[in-house]
Amino acid sequence: MQRMFNLNQQELPTRWYNVQADLDRPLDPPLDPRTREPLSPEALTALFAKTCVEQEVSTDRFIDIPLAVQETYRLWRPTPLYRATHLERALDTPAHIYYKYEGASPTGSHKTNTAVPQAYYNKVEGTKRLTTETGAGQWGSALAFACQALGIDLTVFMVKISYQQKPYRKAMIELYGGKILASPSERTNTGREILKENPDSPGSLGMAISEAIEEAMTTGAKYSLGSVLNHVLLHQTVIGQESLSQMEIAGEYPDVVVGCVGGGSNFGGLMLPILYDAKNRGRKVKFVATEPTACPTITKGEVRYDFGDEAEMTPLLRMHTLGHKFVPPPIHAGGLRYHGMAPIITRLVEDGVIEPRAYDQVDVFSDAVIFARTEGIIPAPETAHAVHAAMELARECARKDEKQVILIGFSGHGHFDMSAYSAYLAGQLVRTS
Amino acid sequence: MQRMFNLNQQELPTRWYNVQADLDRPLDPPLDPRTREPLSPEALTALFAKTCVEQEVSTDRFIDIPLAVQETYRLWRPTPLYRATHLERALDTPAHIYYKYEGASPTGSHKTNTAVPQAYYNKVEGTKRLTTETGAGQWGSALAFACQALGIDLTVFMVKISYQQKPYRKAMIELYGGKILASPSERTNTGREILKENPDSPGSLGMAISEAIEEAMTTGAKYSLGSVLNHVLLHQTVIGQESLSQMEIAGEYPDVVVGCVGGGSNFGGLMLPILYDAKNRGRKVKFVATEPTACPTITKGEVRYDFGDEAEMTPLLRMHTLGHKFVPPPIHAGGLRYHGMAPIITRLVEDGVIEPRAYDQVDVFSDAVIFARTEGIIPAPETAHAVHAAMELARECARKDEKQVILIGFSGHGHFDMSAYSAYLAGQLVRTS
Repeated sequence: MQRMFNLNQQELPTRWYNVQADLDRPLDPPLDPRTREPLSPEALTALFAKTCVEQEVSTDRFIDIPLAVQETYRLWRPTPLYRATHLERALDTPAHIYYKYEGASPTGSHKTNTAVPQAYYNKVEGTKRLTTETGAGQWGSALAFACQALGIDLTVFMVKISYQQKPYRKAMIELYGGKILASPSERTNTGREILKENPDSPGSLGMAISEAIEEAMTTGAKYSLGSVLNHVLLHQTVIGQESLSQMEIAGEYPDVVVGCVGGGSNFGGLMLPILYDAKNRGRKVKFVATEPTACPTITKGEVRYDFGDEAEMTPLLRMHTLGHKFVPPPIHAGGLRYHGMAPIITRLVEDGVIEPRAYDQVDVFSDAVIFARTEGIIPAPETAHAVHAAMELARECARKDEKQVILIGFSGHGHFDMSAYSAYLAGQLVRTS
Repeated sequence: MQRMFNLNQQELPTRWYNVQADLDRPLDPPLDPRTREPLSPEALTALFAKTCVEQEVSTDRFIDIPLAVQETYRLWRPTPLYRATHLERALDTPAHIYYKYEGASPTGSHKTNTAVPQAYYNKVEGTKRLTTETGAGQWGSALAFACQALGIDLTVFMVKISYQQKPYRKAMIELYGGKILASPSERTNTGREILKENPDSPGSLGMAISEAIEEAMTTGAKYSLGSVLNHVLLHQTVIGQESLSQMEIAGEYPDVVVGCVGGGSNFGGLMLPILYDAKNRGRKVKFVATEPTACPTITKGEVRYDFGDEAEMTPLLRMHTLGHKFVPPPIHAGGLRYHGMAPIITRLVEDGVIEPRAYDQVDVFSDAVIFARTEGIIPAPETAHAVHAAMELARECARKDEKQVILIGFSGHGHFDMSAYSAYLAGQLVRTS
């Protein structure tokens, strides 16, 4: 049976889909962190590439992908769509399970889809250097790859505990030519102040964001963010567009689309073009966003204006949030640690378009092991949340003897997360819920 | 420009190509380790699956791939063929460089191509459990994946120093359900004797092979080997067959085919079908086998009968060998550590069909970094030898202003070898030549 659906490179999407053209009311604007007044797009260009800021507020339905970005996408895109025939057999389910495999990218996740255009727009606007933060390293390595491909320098502030515990992601960032600093660092005022108070601070994503922003503001560099923002979700829509073409080759249409959400960009990139397409066809599709019970941003958070970082340097966004001081329990191994959510995802949850579900890491890893043992590919812990949700839906189909077509957003592979699997297999992962 | 050439799954090869049908004289037979007399195929079935032994001596030109093996291959095959457009540009060369990407397999290398049929034949012949050895873990993880897919148990003896230094490969083997022991172990006589003499022994591939064979012989299990033997090269010929179809889509034919050789199976799998095809078309193709100067089996070894393992338990094969007690210098980071060579590769070197070249690890890693920074994909250190050779050929094309079509056997990715890249980037790798 055919289980791999490839597009050829002539079928690579040439434009991104912008959901802001199809929202029934505009998104609430970001607010200035000091005045709490709506922030003008111009103010954002101090931090971000001008074109990215334009895309942040654009209501054009389609935005052309620059040729140079398409050419870099062609290093790995279109990514494969697989039908999980071996998993279906193991679950003895009438459901048809498909997964769109973003692990095929050079750095192993969907993050490169936005890293490349962000590096490109900065390059053509004359930026010589970007700064960013990274936690586990997926975003840092993607942006390092993109900056190398487009010819621009990069400084990454990597959360110190990850810097020490994830030497392979650090090596990957350096292999792609990125400069990397353990955060908190001696490089910034923020870092020095934290270190003065606590020389052994393990760091946090909030601290690293603050350092990356300070570094950009004080050195004439620009800053780059790997999720949450509208233009990031826009860039990710190549995933959903390709998936639609591939599902058509497979001769099916998804009844359910499942993805994991940290900041919301991989799920947004998959589901937004399908939402648009389904509306045009008059089809009903269920969209399921999955998150850890250890960081239940949508299922337990509230919707309000909040900061993107712990140090209150970013603009305020109206979004689901657990509060910008939130840190998941240390035992949590499954990624998706961000306290906030993409405003686009928040809106679609409020509108009842997206259904959120939270899962405990023990259940998530348990199903990830079944997935790896049947399909071969090892899911990243983040991705495993979507895999688990899809498997639960497929089991329900088996109980009801109902065929459903389930499409998983498979955001990345777990080659750099094997220590989490080791911990699970050794029985060291406990329930957090 | 198109740079990814995919086949759809209907185009997966349905038979393997057996070069033994086309050798002008038969290969020399394996010898009994005690009597030094030619070993009957029957004697080999004590260790290996009967069908594998039949394939080992078969002179049928094509051997059907069982449907269950094809179905498991479809978890990841056909693998992509890429044209290295970004690398070509960086080298400013008129050469066209293609690479056949076996890193797309679940465990990240070509090893799964033979792991699956070996597990399958054992399964249908009633074997309940396989044993094997693994050094860095590439073969152990591939066989663990295959045994899981086909429903058979596996015990892996992993060289102790790798077991300690490569926890992620160990985790991968366990994730696929393989049982893993650090070798030397307390489990076998061989292991216990070594430990009695040297409780701190770091192990070696030779010791691990001896333990795996003893374990198979004493428990009614069968043993499985991941390279060197004729049937292993046979199973790998899906690589070369797919490459030919993909090169045809690209509208080109290789002038040079480059691969790395440890035991010789990935290079054999790529080049043997192309050798056959080129002969039929009356085309001249250059075949280049690359190895490390730190383990120069073909370029510095002699051709004679030798053991496959240090402990002299295996049959003797006529092959290039550095002596079965050979161990590469500890500083060598580039894999390809085996003292011997596939008898088929040895024969083709003797016949002048294959040209061997040895490279120093510093030059190899230097070009691997350029490859990763242009093409995105990170080569395994083994694969990097082939990449370096291809880049040298492409530079020669640039000097001569000559277009050549170069095809690289890209045996695997380097996600589990980042520590070698770290060492290189930190200037800790020294020349071994």
